[in-house]
Amino acid sequence: MTYCVGLKIDTGLVFMSDTRTNAGVDNISTFSKMRTWQVPGGRVIVLLSAGNLATTQAVISLLDERTKAVEERAPSLLATPSMFQTAQLVGDTLKEVIRQAAPAGQNADAFGASFILGGQIRGGEPRLFLVYPEGNFIEAGEDTPFFQIGETKYGKPILIRAHEKGLGFAETVKLLLVSFDSTVKANLSVGLPLDLAYCERDSFTVGYRKRIEQDDPYFRTVSEGWSSALKSAIKSLPDFEP
Amino acid sequence: MTYCVGLKIDTGLVFMSDTRTNAGVDNISTFSKMRTWQVPGGRVIVLLSAGNLATTQAVISLLDERTKAVEERAPSLLATPSMFQTAQLVGDTLKEVIRQAAPAGQNADAFGASFILGGQIRGGEPRLFLVYPEGNFIEAGEDTPFFQIGETKYGKPILIRAHEKGLGFAETVKLLLVSFDSTVKANLSVGLPLDLAYCERDSFTVGYRKRIEQDDPYFRTVSEGWSSALKSAIKSLPDFEP
Repeated sequence: MTYCVGLKIDTGLVFMSDTRTNAGVDNISTFSKMRTWQVPGGRVIVLLSAGNLATTQAVISLLDERTKAVEERAPSLLATPSMFQTAQLVGDTLKEVIRQAAPAGQNADAFGASFILGGQIRGGEPRLFLVYPEGNFIEAGEDTPFFQIGETKYGKPILIRAHEKGLGFAETVKLLLVSFDSTVKANLSVGLPLDLAYCERDSFTVGYRKRIEQDDPYFRTVSEGWSSALKSAIKSLPDFEP
Repeated sequence: MTYCVGLKIDTGLVFMSDTRTNAGVDNISTFSKMRTWQVPGGRVIVLLSAGNLATTQAVISLLDERTKAVEERAPSLLATPSMFQTAQLVGDTLKEVIRQAAPAGQNADAFGASFILGGQIRGGEPRLFLVYPEGNFIEAGEDTPFFQIGETKYGKPILIRAHEKGLGFAETVKLLLVSFDSTVKANLSVGLPLDLAYCERDSFTVGYRKRIEQDDPYFRTVSEGWSSALKSAIKSLPDFEP
């Protein structure tokens, strides 16, 4: 499977994704699910993908090729006037790929893929979108400033509970690592290394990018510390009195 | 959906289940998913159920009727010589119900149901089983002393992390409530009130049974306290340093 999260904070956008893909538990590989495009001073775009790997790779390759050889009827990711139109472009490209992959009568569900799209284009705010397998999409708002795709359930409770307004980048990374660690511990099809990216507001660049490996000292601190922190948290609640 | 957990502790067996059933989010009802049978001094049996409500109700009704009018070829839940054979009886009854509900050629998946079965019969230990929709089953052991059925994912990370050997009944209830609260907060199809039961080792009875309502003071303490306890737990970990 896959687990990806995109999160909007006051100072910009934070993205994290795992790198495991699998066709059965006996056939796993490592692929990055994070792709970035930048035009210095003009725009930064980050795309996280989950679902059928053939579909997501085709979508990303088409988007990428069209930034290099712009055709009249296939606009480029580097030329869209707004993030909203960028989300439309990603959705349209996804629909195009599925249309080609699934001949008439064939069930298109197997080709399903979803995306988290985030970025900022000069003249606009940083924006975050979730693109559904159908190619339509929603945007993150004040009430729900994050999106998850892939194996979302294990890591969701901690995001719901511990996320709060005004989190900084460092605290957000900590929260995301706890959410990813919970997921990795519960589902074999989500695995390290993790990709982390941060686009600071009005920088129009991926200012920070890191691959977090299994033996990353900070990841180990969080993973091991979280078990004892959780046990202390449970202990801090009053016991049940029958 | 449903969420049920059965957990083996040193002093006995603890069970918790929600009570929400639904056919779509616009059609929800309250049904207990916990059923108990007792023979004073001889045996105690607890059955938690998830899945198709028609199937689980049919299985429970058949099991129950056969404790009253024992037929030769349909043994009674109150007469099985061991918990292992009790699990076999539950599995066989499930297969019987699905066979009758799904005519030839019809997909039986829609009639799927799973059960957590726990209890103790005089002469044996307290034992805990998970009965699959296919009617076969597994037993809890030292390494995995709990089973979940239904919407298992949201509440699993806390069980994995905070469960430890030697937990008492009161601490176990606290842990289960945190797990249930995480699930209820994330999935509308799991809902209060919750049913709680405790079978103390060698008591051969459900010594403690309680229905925990939305306004239960202890549940509210755990639910509200957990948010701040989690936030403190996150704060207790060192921040990420880019």
